[in-house]
Amino acid sequence: MRITGTFLDEISYDIPHQNWGPKEWEADFQAMKACGIDTVVLIRCGLQRFIALDSKVLVDKFGCYRPPIDLVELFLTLADKYGMAFYFGTYDLYGVHDDDMIQLEREINFPLCEEVWKKYSHHPSFKGWYLSLEFSRRNDKMIAFQHDLGAHVKALSGNLPVMVSPYIDGCKAVPAGGPLTKEHGITVEEHYKQWDAMLANMEGVLDAVAFQDGHVEYSELAEFLAANKELAVKHGMQSWTNCETFDRDMPIRFLPIKWEKMLLKLEAAEKAGLDKAITFEFSHFMSPNSMYTSAGHLYNRYMEYIQK
Amino acid sequence: MRITGTFLDEISYDIPHQNWGPKEWEADFQAMKACGIDTVVLIRCGLQRFIALDSKVLVDKFGCYRPPIDLVELFLTLADKYGMAFYFGTYDLYGVHDDDMIQLEREINFPLCEEVWKKYSHHPSFKGWYLSLEFSRRNDKMIAFQHDLGAHVKALSGNLPVMVSPYIDGCKAVPAGGPLTKEHGITVEEHYKQWDAMLANMEGVLDAVAFQDGHVEYSELAEFLAANKELAVKHGMQSWTNCETFDRDMPIRFLPIKWEKMLLKLEAAEKAGLDKAITFEFSHFMSPNSMYTSAGHLYNRYMEYIQK
Amino acid sequence: MRITGTFLDEISYDIPHQNWGPKEWEADFQAMKACGIDTVVLIRCGLQRFIALDSKVLVDKFGCYRPPIDLVELFLTLADKYGMAFYFGTYDLYGVHDDDMIQLEREINFPLCEEVWKKYSHHPSFKGWYLSLEFSRRNDKMIAFQHDLGAHVKALSGNLPVMVSPYIDGCKAVPAGGPLTKEHGITVEEHYKQWDAMLANMEGVLDAVAFQDGHVEYSELAEFLAANKELAVKHGMQSWTNCETFDRDMPIRFLPIKWEKMLLKLEAAEKAGLDKAITFEFSHFMSPNSMYTSAGHLYNRYMEYIQK
Repeated sequence: MRITGTFLDEISYDIPHQNWGPKEWEADFQAMKACGIDTVVLIRCGLQRFIALDSKVLVDKFGCYRPPIDLVELFLTLADKYGMAFYFGTYDLYGVHDDDMIQLEREINFPLCEEVWKKYSHHPSFKGWYLSLEFSRRNDKMIAFQHDLGAHVKALSGNLPVMVSPYIDGCKAVPAGGPLTKEHGITVEEHYKQWDAMLANMEGVLDAVAFQDGHVEYSELAEFLAANKELAVKHGMQSWTNCETFDRDMPIRFLPIKWEKMLLKLEAAEKAGLDKAITFEFSHFMSPNSMYTSAGHLYNRYMEYIQK
Repeated sequence: MRITGTFLDEISYDIPHQNWGPKEWEADFQAMKACGIDTVVLIRCGLQRFIALDSKVLVDKFGCYRPPIDLVELFLTLADKYGMAFYFGTYDLYGVHDDDMIQLEREINFPLCEEVWKKYSHHPSFKGWYLSLEFSRRNDKMIAFQHDLGAHVKALSGNLPVMVSPYIDGCKAVPAGGPLTKEHGITVEEHYKQWDAMLANMEGVLDAVAFQDGHVEYSELAEFLAANKELAVKHGMQSWTNCETFDRDMPIRFLPIKWEKMLLKLEAAEKAGLDKAITFEFSHFMSPNSMYTSAGHLYNRYMEYIQK
Repeated sequence: MRITGTFLDEISYDIPHQNWGPKEWEADFQAMKACGIDTVVLIRCGLQRFIALDSKVLVDKFGCYRPPIDLVELFLTLADKYGMAFYFGTYDLYGVHDDDMIQLEREINFPLCEEVWKKYSHHPSFKGWYLSLEFSRRNDKMIAFQHDLGAHVKALSGNLPVMVSPYIDGCKAVPAGGPLTKEHGITVEEHYKQWDAMLANMEGVLDAVAFQDGHVEYSELAEFLAANKELAVKHGMQSWTNCETFDRDMPIRFLPIKWEKMLLKLEAAEKAGLDKAITFEFSHFMSPNSMYTSAGHLYNRYMEYIQK
């Protein structure tokens, strides 16, 4: 199982910024290309007031800060140049999702995606949409919003594929400030049941589900991956794995994962027959250009593995 | 708005040490010089038993550890060589300030500053004093101590300037071990009122106030900076900004700030008409020599900005 | 006092992995050799399901993951090549030690050590055993287990030396997720009393005790080291110090220690007359190859010190 996609963690929620300019980003796209990455997914185009593009909707109507550089333009240009597919990640208001927030995210994302499609669709690498809101437990209002936004962007763009990357509410689904685990992670049965109901309402507008693979114990992962695969097949979607390349088991939150753990997760995904593996994310956690040296060593270990 | 000063974070309270010797420090003074820094401020000369100079007062009378190298001598020598102004940061007992501590800090700092002036004032770069105790809410005993210590060092040194760098008790003024924010940050009105009272009692002994700029939301910063400027003008002081170059929004406490955030803060300080910008601090968070690679990239982004 | 030994932190409990392969490990053994290290101690051969060797006992009987590389074989080969003594660290089930866990650790470690001795004892560098369970307060069941396991491995191996490295339950003996200190650290008298009782039951099977030196205040260290020395002499053991080279006083858990602190600890150990100094651990915290640049600077400061 090879990693063929990565998120681009701009705008970041909890990962410190590397302060790269266009030159450093191009070097990193080259490193991605060298290890077989063909898909880049913008994790979100904005969070609160910080945004990754120069958008009239976000700046003029919602008071976001105009960024010093238009990263969406930069990423699309690099994806064009290196022959990759770019997925545009929608705007996230805050990271938490009550009814008022969902309503506001609706009001922002609908016109925003129209603006984005108008402005950037001339790039041949603009190949899909990523609905960026992350959640796990059954949430019907959220699903209704995701459905409508997915339908909207597909209609806009001639049916380009739509992807989501939810988490599993496992024992490691905890806030970054406290203990590393919680006592009661969700069971695989309950996970299946809740997502079965939610995905039923996303049929036709959702093309791929890339569950995050880092919130359960390594010993539990195989059965969750099998359930995720079954869910996707049942609802006519592709089943991707989001192979997290940072380590959730360490008190520093977060540094690159141990290669052995990544290997276990890739082998489990292969065994479960998943359709594609992407990662959160290359540039901090498995790139030779990362500020974390151990990411470069992870890249070397991974390259040895795929070249065997 | 350019950064023309930096703290030297020796002795550090919460930032891991880089283990630099004289050669590494000289390289960093060269990097500071190259980006326009003309002022270096020792954050404190000691904290508890760890101290940055070989002091009879601190070692013989108060049981501090004699350090392996006299950093005050080193920093003054480098400041002489590179044409910078050096501000000496006073001793901090513990980071918390009850009445007993303030009394003890008084007993230590008065003779200490006399010793320091005798020992180091031959350096042409010895240009000012930094009163290192950090606080935010109105504290009359602390202000009385700061007043007396400021008067004392001015009398010692032929009226050299005295500077402080308080924090704003905003929503990000929280301990490093828990959540990233608290619910009730101070209002700008209350902040103005409390510091108006405190600065009234510092007139004549305080030359510059460099409020830290990282404890409030980015969207609140402009009004706090305007208040800080107004406070300084009213009380006949210079208004500096302490532009923090580490990121308070991330679970790793602390790594270099995102360039976009730093830029927002510099632009806000310029708009508020502040007199000078210094940073906490260059060597860890915006230096090409930093142990954090993203600090070097921040330096590059900043250099592009000032060379535009 | 020089550092002549280091732990090898595989499998790690709370330190992020560097993702080194054989080439990087060999470079690090060379750096160890260059600074006088003659002893390497595997911190543990396994923790939960992750293990550092290809072991029938652990994989077939206890469901551990077969690792991508046999690190025990690699470390022994490098220790052979560079003329070092290798201590094999036993298996740790979980990091906590109730009666059931101790029983299970007994069932695992006895056959495991037999397998290990059979498989790896041809390496001339296999020179000792490290009982990896870490505890501090009096625990008679644990001591009974440590005694029996120590006797077992000595009998297996022709009386090779056995070492432990307990911690002192001082004010810095706290979990990595919360505050940096607790209010009531153990007194030196109580520490002496509890370990006097425990070591009495380890006589004849324990050759060296290397207490960790990082859980007490710097100002308390001298008296704890003196007590540790006295305990070892009384019970006919060697007294080593485990000089921690990471910093327990900083909110990032953990980065390399400040050189001045390490120097204080080494000087205190020398004054207490300890027999040997080892460190936890070279490769992350004082190696020029470490992912943390400040570890390389610590190495340089240490080399200047030993070459004086």
